[in-house]
Amino acid sequence: MTMGTIYGVGLGPGDPDLMSRKADSLIRAARHVAYFRKAGRAGHARRIVEGMLHADAREHPMEYPVTTEISFHDPAYKDMLSAFYAECTAHLRGLAAAGEDVVVLCEGDPFFYGSFMHLHERLKDDVPVEVVPGITGMSGAWTATGIPVTWGDDVLVVLTGTLPEDELTRRIAEADALVVMKLGRNLDKVRRALAATGRLEAAWLIEYATMPNQTVRRLTEAPSKPAPYFSMIVVHGQGRRP
Amino acid sequence: MTMGTIYGVGLGPGDPDLMSRKADSLIRAARHVAYFRKAGRAGHARRIVEGMLHADAREHPMEYPVTTEISFHDPAYKDMLSAFYAECTAHLRGLAAAGEDVVVLCEGDPFFYGSFMHLHERLKDDVPVEVVPGITGMSGAWTATGIPVTWGDDVLVVLTGTLPEDELTRRIAEADALVVMKLGRNLDKVRRALAATGRLEAAWLIEYATMPNQTVRRLTEAPSKPAPYFSMIVVHGQGRRP
Ligand SMILES: C[S@@+](CC[C@H](N)C(=O)[O-])C[C@H]1O[C@@H](n2cnc3c(N)ncnc32)[C@H](O)[C@@H]1O
Ligand SMILES: C[S@@+](CC[C@H](N)C(=O)[O-])C[C@H]1O[C@@H](n2cnc3c(N)ncnc32)[C@H](O)[C@@H]1O
Repeated sequence: MTMGTIYGVGLGPGDPDLMSRKADSLIRAARHVAYFRKAGRAGHARRIVEGMLHADAREHPMEYPVTTEISFHDPAYKDMLSAFYAECTAHLRGLAAAGEDVVVLCEGDPFFYGSFMHLHERLKDDVPVEVVPGITGMSGAWTATGIPVTWGDDVLVVLTGTLPEDELTRRIAEADALVVMKLGRNLDKVRRALAATGRLEAAWLIEYATMPNQTVRRLTEAPSKPAPYFSMIVVHGQGRRP
Repeated sequence: MTMGTIYGVGLGPGDPDLMSRKADSLIRAARHVAYFRKAGRAGHARRIVEGMLHADAREHPMEYPVTTEISFHDPAYKDMLSAFYAECTAHLRGLAAAGEDVVVLCEGDPFFYGSFMHLHERLKDDVPVEVVPGITGMSGAWTATGIPVTWGDDVLVVLTGTLPEDELTRRIAEADALVVMKLGRNLDKVRRALAATGRLEAAWLIEYATMPNQTVRRLTEAPSKPAPYFSMIVVHGQGRRP
């Protein structure tokens, strides 16, 4: 029997119409659809494909054991996640071994800070895996601001709010155009780093880009409280333009 | 009469199946389709939509007066391009004023180093403009390598090969994950900057990502000659992973 293929399929930033034609047809045809979600939630990726799944599709939710309850830096976090990914991988490998193809739904682009990467890493050497790129959340976010992000030879720096403040400050100082992802409780730290480099006034905060509840505003107009999971900061480049 | 809307529509990295559902339906319905191309060529963006245009669609090719013949740094280049964009803008504004919607075909994501930005800049204050994000060439390129680009809190730096060598070297040294676009005749300069920072062995060269003639190889295996327009370098991040 030939093995099935595991497809990591990018869904784009959230608006279902921003998924690719290829994602659309793989998802509609799939008999096995897997996705990550927080226990007790519908799952964001799953919500994007609502109404698209085949009547015979079997769903395979993969529920995170933890998300933000314990710190990244706690070794217990790493062990728990590692065991979780091993378990997900075993399940998908079993389906593939039985000759079944599986579509794994991925927010944005699968290979850009995506959870799918942890499955890919564990499967790639013994199971056929195919990845379909997607529109990133950041493309959704800068498009939502109505302002181009990089001109001419602007340098774009993409950071995560999880970095220490001094490193954020140092790296923001080097950026022409800037994206900061993974904000959450890091928002005030990122704000201070932007202020320290004179970029605060130029920063935009985009929440839920391309989703029905999208908000776009200057960071200086946002309240000082944790940002939602789907949020990022964009500072546009000012490079050469004829 | 209400004005028409100018749509800047991202086509993605080249494979027509990687355009979004939204791009697909806007393009199929359009009565006016505009795109940049080099004089005497079919145009790369136009080729991606081959077979999709409505029978009644009018095409509006916008032919670059120069591309690589004269240097970026020559003021004549800037003036020539500026006049060209003004002329394109006047043409599109005329269509919109007559109540016509126009779809402008854009490679990759329109707001990411895209030519459409120069039209957008000139139109946005007096014509309705809507932008549809697309999968970037870089997402197509790192997906083609089969290796995720950013993990955990990796910093992604996106550069253009047009920067001076010392600046390339300095900025590459700061990157966890790296993308270098606009290679062309800059390839050897970029290669030297990668070597100076110990990143040469880790660099991949992707030509024509997601197109029928795609090639993916380690940069050390590529010949020392100018790279094609559709090419970029990717160095993958090695960040935290459970
Ligand atoms: C684990 S990363 C996944 C990124 C995803 N693979 C992509 O290509 O965009 C999650 C982070 O992406 C950002 N993000 C993704 N989609 C977003 C959206 N629609 N609006 C705002 N932020 C988004 C947020 O910063 C979030 O913390
Ligand atoms: C003017 S920029 C336009 C970028 C485009 N807006 C995007 O989102 O990818 C042109 C550069 O993009 C890169 N590029 C775009 N698509 C590519 C592809 N399919 N394969 C390789 N490089 C590509 C090349 O480095 C090229 O020099």
